[in-house]
Amino acid sequence: MSTNCIFCKIISGEVPSTKVYEDAEVLAFMDIGPIIKGHTLVIPKHHVDPITNAPPGMLARLIQVVQKIAQAQMNGLKAHGVNIMQANGASAGQVVPHLHFHVIPRFETDGHKWNWAAKKYDSIDEMKRVAEEIKKAM
Amino acid sequence: MSTNCIFCKIISGEVPSTKVYEDAEVLAFMDIGPIIKGHTLVIPKHHVDPITNAPPGMLARLIQVVQKIAQAQMNGLKAHGVNIMQANGASAGQVVPHLHFHVIPRFETDGHKWNWAAKKYDSIDEMKRVAEEIKKAM
Repeated sequence: MSTNCIFCKIISGEVPSTKVYEDAEVLAFMDIGPIIKGHTLVIPKHHVDPITNAPPGMLARLIQVVQKIAQAQMNGLKAHGVNIMQANGASAGQVVPHLHFHVIPRFETDGHKWNWAAKKYDSIDEMKRVAEEIKKAM
Repeated sequence: MSTNCIFCKIISGEVPSTKVYEDAEVLAFMDIGPIIKGHTLVIPKHHVDPITNAPPGMLARLIQVVQKIAQAQMNGLKAHGVNIMQANGASAGQVVPHLHFHVIPRFETDGHKWNWAAKKYDSIDEMKRVAEEIKKAM
């Protein structure tokens, strides 16, 4: 538990939430500011941030619950699709620094468009150089 | 392997790609239309779609590689943050129907803003009703 973490307070019950799933390690609850109604957050009960600090077992459990929620949004809400979104760091748009996955039901007529401003590399060589920097760091 | 799937053709080598990671089950390669340079795709070698059809072991392996790539973008590219994004269905913005995770390095000055048009529920009761529909379907 991390002091002043709103998600830790939701886990402890100090702050109320509308839960959709809970087990010993994972909690899923409604985002009160949904991109689309049904938008659910999946978090580990143990305070971890960012995703790179999550132990493999925790990560495997989280993504299993994410999958379960996605299926339930499709079956229960008749969603046509689902987005999974996860942000690490303020530069990525993260607001609450406690690892969380957004699971967002999507409908053909929901009107939401992601800003998918795809760029281009100046050359294939530039792309290969960037790839090499990632590979060297693995 | 699924005929006419561009990602299956990348896996087989029929279509070229710039790889950053590969093992028996998972491939990670550069997105040629990056939101931010360094944008990497992580896919299973076995053709699966959408995420709800992925076996638990595959999903655990994929998210581990996603984590590995996120760490390497932070260390190798000096990214300040990372976004993980995954789309299921055309309504969610999915273009290639082969399960894939986007791993996108983020920088304080990269200028990208997600369209995060958060909505509100008409009432707490409405939110609880939607949550109940998800829970019942699990």
